[in-house]
Amino acid sequence: MSAQADVSVAEYLLIRLKQMGIDHLFGVPGDFVLGFLNEVLDSQVRYIGTCNELNAAYAADGYARVRGAGAFVTTYAVGELSAINGLAGAFAERVPVVAITGAPSMGYFKTRPLLHHTLGDYQIPLKMYSLITAASALLESGESAPAAIDHVLTTCLRQQQPVYLCLPADVVRMRCSVPGPFPLPPEPTSDAGTLRESIEEASEMLNSAAKPVVIGDVELIRYGLQDEFAAFLARTGLPYATMMLGKTVLDETHPQFIGLYQGDRSRDYVHQRIENADCVLQLGVAPTDFNTGSFSVKIHEDRTISANFRSVRIKRHIYPDVTLREFIQGLSQQLRSRDPSTLDIKRAIEGCTHRRTINFEPQPESPLTISRFFDRIGHFLPPRAIVIAETGAALFSAAETLMPEGAKFIGQTFYGSIGYTVGATLGASLAAPDRRVVLFVGDGSFQVTCQDLSTMIRYGQKPVIFLLNNDGYTIERVIVDRPYNDIQPWKYHRLVEVFGGGLAFDVHTEGQLEAALAQAAGAEELVFIEIHTGRFDCSESLRRAGEAMARTNKLG
Amino acid sequence: MSAQADVSVAEYLLIRLKQMGIDHLFGVPGDFVLGFLNEVLDSQVRYIGTCNELNAAYAADGYARVRGAGAFVTTYAVGELSAINGLAGAFAERVPVVAITGAPSMGYFKTRPLLHHTLGDYQIPLKMYSLITAASALLESGESAPAAIDHVLTTCLRQQQPVYLCLPADVVRMRCSVPGPFPLPPEPTSDAGTLRESIEEASEMLNSAAKPVVIGDVELIRYGLQDEFAAFLARTGLPYATMMLGKTVLDETHPQFIGLYQGDRSRDYVHQRIENADCVLQLGVAPTDFNTGSFSVKIHEDRTISANFRSVRIKRHIYPDVTLREFIQGLSQQLRSRDPSTLDIKRAIEGCTHRRTINFEPQPESPLTISRFFDRIGHFLPPRAIVIAETGAALFSAAETLMPEGAKFIGQTFYGSIGYTVGATLGASLAAPDRRVVLFVGDGSFQVTCQDLSTMIRYGQKPVIFLLNNDGYTIERVIVDRPYNDIQPWKYHRLVEVFGGGLAFDVHTEGQLEAALAQAAGAEELVFIEIHTGRFDCSESLRRAGEAMARTNKLG
Repeated sequence: MSAQADVSVAEYLLIRLKQMGIDHLFGVPGDFVLGFLNEVLDSQVRYIGTCNELNAAYAADGYARVRGAGAFVTTYAVGELSAINGLAGAFAERVPVVAITGAPSMGYFKTRPLLHHTLGDYQIPLKMYSLITAASALLESGESAPAAIDHVLTTCLRQQQPVYLCLPADVVRMRCSVPGPFPLPPEPTSDAGTLRESIEEASEMLNSAAKPVVIGDVELIRYGLQDEFAAFLARTGLPYATMMLGKTVLDETHPQFIGLYQGDRSRDYVHQRIENADCVLQLGVAPTDFNTGSFSVKIHEDRTISANFRSVRIKRHIYPDVTLREFIQGLSQQLRSRDPSTLDIKRAIEGCTHRRTINFEPQPESPLTISRFFDRIGHFLPPRAIVIAETGAALFSAAETLMPEGAKFIGQTFYGSIGYTVGATLGASLAAPDRRVVLFVGDGSFQVTCQDLSTMIRYGQKPVIFLLNNDGYTIERVIVDRPYNDIQPWKYHRLVEVFGGGLAFDVHTEGQLEAALAQAAGAEELVFIEIHTGRFDCSESLRRAGEAMARTNKLG
Repeated sequence: MSAQADVSVAEYLLIRLKQMGIDHLFGVPGDFVLGFLNEVLDSQVRYIGTCNELNAAYAADGYARVRGAGAFVTTYAVGELSAINGLAGAFAERVPVVAITGAPSMGYFKTRPLLHHTLGDYQIPLKMYSLITAASALLESGESAPAAIDHVLTTCLRQQQPVYLCLPADVVRMRCSVPGPFPLPPEPTSDAGTLRESIEEASEMLNSAAKPVVIGDVELIRYGLQDEFAAFLARTGLPYATMMLGKTVLDETHPQFIGLYQGDRSRDYVHQRIENADCVLQLGVAPTDFNTGSFSVKIHEDRTISANFRSVRIKRHIYPDVTLREFIQGLSQQLRSRDPSTLDIKRAIEGCTHRRTINFEPQPESPLTISRFFDRIGHFLPPRAIVIAETGAALFSAAETLMPEGAKFIGQTFYGSIGYTVGATLGASLAAPDRRVVLFVGDGSFQVTCQDLSTMIRYGQKPVIFLLNNDGYTIERVIVDRPYNDIQPWKYHRLVEVFGGGLAFDVHTEGQLEAALAQAAGAEELVFIEIHTGRFDCSESLRRAGEAMARTNKLG
């Protein structure tokens, strides 16, 4: 150990987390992690206790999507294995989450006594986590910990992927070197010649196209390229669509934004405008099933330029070692500036499915429908809202709802683990205390992870939660409707009182919704609004997703 | 495929499950598993929908501890990875649980499209599960499935360990051969010479000992050796103790049962009787930390015979290839029959901590304490009860409570994943509809997995649930008491109404407890009794476990 050593391994790690912008650490205690938690309590990072570990992981994911990084801490095995699906979601969706486990002391890893929580081979949790992280480490000593921590945490940010650290109880307070500035390695750069050649070819295609269009998707968000994308649009005048994963990459009131593209489930105009374009520039697109209308995208390869994080594909050939950032910046310079009026741009704000530019007249006695509900919501969402939508009827309709200025839309639209949004709402609320967080979650999903509604109340968070009670798993009813899609009916809105307080409403009609929204708008506490709709009431896009899933799974 | 083929792979699997004694399958649906669930609905196995997957796994574990085997089913990745900690617990504790996953169709495993729920490498969940199961398989075709299923399921029963089956959507309805009788391989047998030699040495030691004693523990339960053990005791007259994991191996009213041995946390008589014995026969002991009073057992090796599933250790030498069953049976024949009155036997029923032979006079106005509560509970538990105790204050006091005739005690006493018992209670209730299931669970643990209280209500189960509300994680307060041990206070008893009905009580005093128990005794519905006790109110054994955990983790 060096003479200058004067922080503990725990302090080193906590300083690094703070440098990553992580001010809150979600978790559940357990004896192997108490030593680390003692250090957390004495640090600049605030500990947020959740009811269970899966929700801690989901909260860290929601936090990371707002802040740029998040973290959670659990105890060995029983805790971390309860959370592992949360981190798997972050891995699938490229969210930089740091999973920290407090483990038995190092010596036990070799002697393997039958301590509670253990599984024979003490490295089983590490082996599991290594499958769903970009980097992972067992911190073995004060001497080796700083390099291991730095490797893991820089990988997290550079690759925008989750990582894992296992911290044995006796290593927590070992002394180690003081951390310097966060050692983030420089962003990868392009091969200069390949970059130039790809931009030349792409700009020729785009400049000669009469009706080009852009699709801006998820990687622009994950790699923080919104500014570059906005500058590109301003300079070129081109219209753009987003896919579900890329929703709210920029303000949806943007004059060049034409709406949500989801293959053959898109609105007619968007569908035609993109699939009939003579050149389509895809920036950061992830061609997942939900993103592509179950792979119904029909864009001819001859007309396609597709740039991703580290490569560009034009027609059928690939330019490796071209970064998305440099490609967008370079292409901006090479493209001619167009007059948007020549480009067949119908703004989303004038055409998308649920939008606040359409007058909404409540019919007080009418039972609520999903469609009318989201029509109304378009008027309710405030600027800069963080809108979180759970996989299912909520996600598919919320995705088709125009988001207000500055809004951020969050859904686990690829991994699709139901229950995700309860934890994510806790995380997003703590990440952005100055923004209104609005959650849309179905009853079946809510049952999976409901308990951490209480954690929002405990920590004074004030999201507005719409519980869409459609009496079961509607997303599966549209695939096959059999009794396994039924769930136990709860009096959801009454949970608020059981958990400690907040405003709760039980809404069956449009009139009741108006009354609830009126109170919600000015509320200084958590608002929970239970919305009753029909069992099969959902968007056409979800219905068609259900048909596609029935085909994929050889059902029916 | 052979000409005789005339069941589907799903039917084959379901017939095998039924042959294992599995009548109920716990699970949560998802599109990749709907095809299999359709077959379940048409089978002799009843589908039980839980609120989340972790509870499905815990339910299958509780079911298996009562029935001899259990199973749960989830969808790919998002479902199974939420459940994996439940199966890890079954692995640590040797509980034969079958985990079944519905996965994307086989072809996708090679082409790896970006389907929802996927993680790049489609085999990641399989790789994780293979680390915590005795056998696992991806079912690839109708031709190969029967052998794979049979290998996995026979391993489950023969090794008393959890197993995993991944069933792709397109394989579900592939045709395969009709299953014959369950192909359980014969139990392993001993090497005859080694068995004889071990029994000779052991019988000499025991026959010449003046004050021998037996410890019967968990493996006697897991491998179904209770009858052999009872016969051994009847023939030899020896006294026996159990450890926490082995609690209720036989009736605790047994005339030779002296009580719970947990190293230096044992009652004085048990402690002295065992540690001063001139020969200790350990049958099926798992020397885990909670089982051994944090490794405080002091039994001299020179006086110890320790038989486990596949080997016997005497003093410091090991006899391999000796089975526990044959050793017990053979030893029975070689030991002399003793007069119990010469053996210093003080029956547990006369001496253990909480027992129904002590008169209990309620003091109606007195606030409840843990000690008084369990004194009272000794009188409440009916014969043949299944008593489930959650890790924490509940477990440590329940373990010191005398169980009535025919009772079965369940705790996750080695793995110790809090929240386990909620699912386990659901599983045990369905496994034994003719027995009263009684749960003791702490508030912190209950928050982890509370939602499946609603599933018990949904399926008409009638357990009596004691929610021990001590305002936080008491098991951790006795290690270090800092704010991470605080939790949000809930009105727990009101959840019953939110979830759909049952009897609920909020109990602060002994008088209120009497009133609640009077109603609970005859109730034909779920009973939920919230018990308020002090934050630090727990047994001396838990307090000492806390001190040991503080030392193990270098705290304090």
